[in-house]
Amino acid sequence: MRTVEKATLVNKMNGALALRSEINDFVDNFYKQGFTNICWLGIGGTYASSMQAVIHMKEKTALETFYQNAAEYLVTGNKRITDKTLVITSSVTGNTVEVVDAVKEISKIGATILGFIDDENAALASMVSKSISYPENEQLKFFMVADRFMYLTGEFPDYEEFYQELDDHFAEDIANIEVNADKLAEPFAQQHHDDDIHYFVGAGNQWGATYSYAMCYWEEQHWIKTRAIEAAEFFHGMFEIIDRDTPVTVYVGEDSQRPLSERVAKFLPEICGNYTIIDTKDYELPGISEKYRGTLSPFVFHAINNRIDANIEHINRHPMDIRRYYRALKY
Amino acid sequence: MRTVEKATLVNKMNGALALRSEINDFVDNFYKQGFTNICWLGIGGTYASSMQAVIHMKEKTALETFYQNAAEYLVTGNKRITDKTLVITSSVTGNTVEVVDAVKEISKIGATILGFIDDENAALASMVSKSISYPENEQLKFFMVADRFMYLTGEFPDYEEFYQELDDHFAEDIANIEVNADKLAEPFAQQHHDDDIHYFVGAGNQWGATYSYAMCYWEEQHWIKTRAIEAAEFFHGMFEIIDRDTPVTVYVGEDSQRPLSERVAKFLPEICGNYTIIDTKDYELPGISEKYRGTLSPFVFHAINNRIDANIEHINRHPMDIRRYYRALKY
Repeated sequence: MRTVEKATLVNKMNGALALRSEINDFVDNFYKQGFTNICWLGIGGTYASSMQAVIHMKEKTALETFYQNAAEYLVTGNKRITDKTLVITSSVTGNTVEVVDAVKEISKIGATILGFIDDENAALASMVSKSISYPENEQLKFFMVADRFMYLTGEFPDYEEFYQELDDHFAEDIANIEVNADKLAEPFAQQHHDDDIHYFVGAGNQWGATYSYAMCYWEEQHWIKTRAIEAAEFFHGMFEIIDRDTPVTVYVGEDSQRPLSERVAKFLPEICGNYTIIDTKDYELPGISEKYRGTLSPFVFHAINNRIDANIEHINRHPMDIRRYYRALKY
Repeated sequence: MRTVEKATLVNKMNGALALRSEINDFVDNFYKQGFTNICWLGIGGTYASSMQAVIHMKEKTALETFYQNAAEYLVTGNKRITDKTLVITSSVTGNTVEVVDAVKEISKIGATILGFIDDENAALASMVSKSISYPENEQLKFFMVADRFMYLTGEFPDYEEFYQELDDHFAEDIANIEVNADKLAEPFAQQHHDDDIHYFVGAGNQWGATYSYAMCYWEEQHWIKTRAIEAAEFFHGMFEIIDRDTPVTVYVGEDSQRPLSERVAKFLPEICGNYTIIDTKDYELPGISEKYRGTLSPFVFHAINNRIDANIEHINRHPMDIRRYYRALKY
């Protein structure tokens, strides 16, 4: 089974946090020029991170910000994207075709494009207005951009305090959660590695991550069927198919939408005997103020999900790198 | 089995189309006052119709328009909704608690609220700035509002021509499709009424309808598991769980996102032997110009889906009015 080394996790996270000064130089300069809106562009996993960034900003901001699916942009366009727009995108390989093509089109319009392109040699890195290359941590990168904007608008007055706490404690805290997560992840994987279908419920800044965890991990990498549902939508039709044996996992975070997930977590045991509630309140983040925990909930879930993946991968003897169709066939 | 009478369908649709003058009086007056954006508010089925309205507008407009989940508004808020916003919502009963509560909060902010409240005696009808009461046809009502705005901005110069064609031919055309839809619906229902899970793929102005058809009809009313997926996202993880026997239905409409659904429809037969492609191009709409067919695709699918429902309801001897949890338990 894949293991996890705390020092590696700490270093990776601190490296991501250290991108902040480069991000801020870019955002501060862009902000001064004047702009009308902020667009998060992606597809698949990046599309999901984009949803998270928008919900994260909605907590505080009056700025216009939205996410845009790259493939949909190529056929429908989006007239809100102009030369006064900042488009933020991300790509590990830099060769996701829909993102590359959308960036080409958006460049013609004159929008400013910030790209987190992990492979700095990818062509995409030279097509964006500004490229920042550092592996993984897409959500944190997006949140750092979002937070800087909200600092500049005056909507995040304790920005410095928040990031001081992150710089001092977050990498250590989140690494500790991951290295200890097998306590939950191992029995969870034993119980669910052979599910016909697994339901995942999420809300707020965890909804995008719930969508992508179900799709990009269980469906794509474990080949297990899933259905992700927003907590607010759970009660509007979908829950009629839940019965005693339906496997359901509910992510209960600490952002403003916690009551929506709590409502599901509270009701679910009345109709389902095969549920799991993962609540960030059960996890300590020493050195992090109570008021910031909501923003950080997705990272707690991510650390836990990583270990669920490692356990399922081992039990099912299904290496997560295998794809039967994705980038393997022509489509 | 529920049958369908053409004259009834025609009358219902013509009644909905006749709402246009009342809608236009309201929109024209609101437009003159000046505004910053248009928000579509809903939950469950209305949330889905809201997604459709936004995609419909994106085809043409530079206006800022977005959808907002009512339950999420209650906990996170949305600072883009101000006293310069038009909020449009809809409710059959007028007592969907999340919508009622969100309308109360939004009223305090001073936003203008247009409500399509089917029950004109519901309290909600007196809480909105303007209420219009007529049964069903939520998507058409939303599209008529959207289209009037785009007419006023000059983004829909052939608005009058389009609605002339609708007034003259649409009710008859769409009723003809529904009364003849058992040709597809009956064998489809025979094949899929007992599916463990059914996958629905949609794009563009059909995506919201795909989401709600899977959730509000198959899950809620037939108690059959489903997974709805945007065509653009199909290739980004989800399709790895598709194999020979996985039941998949692809809606291929004629709006700008047709190429996204076509891509799925073209590839799917290589990995799946249990698929159905429903393509609006196979259905005639006499008297409707080619260029307007894309806007009308969701109505074609809706007519077909109605007959799939009637057939599944009968085969499964599961009356669609039965709910085990929804509005039956406290949650």
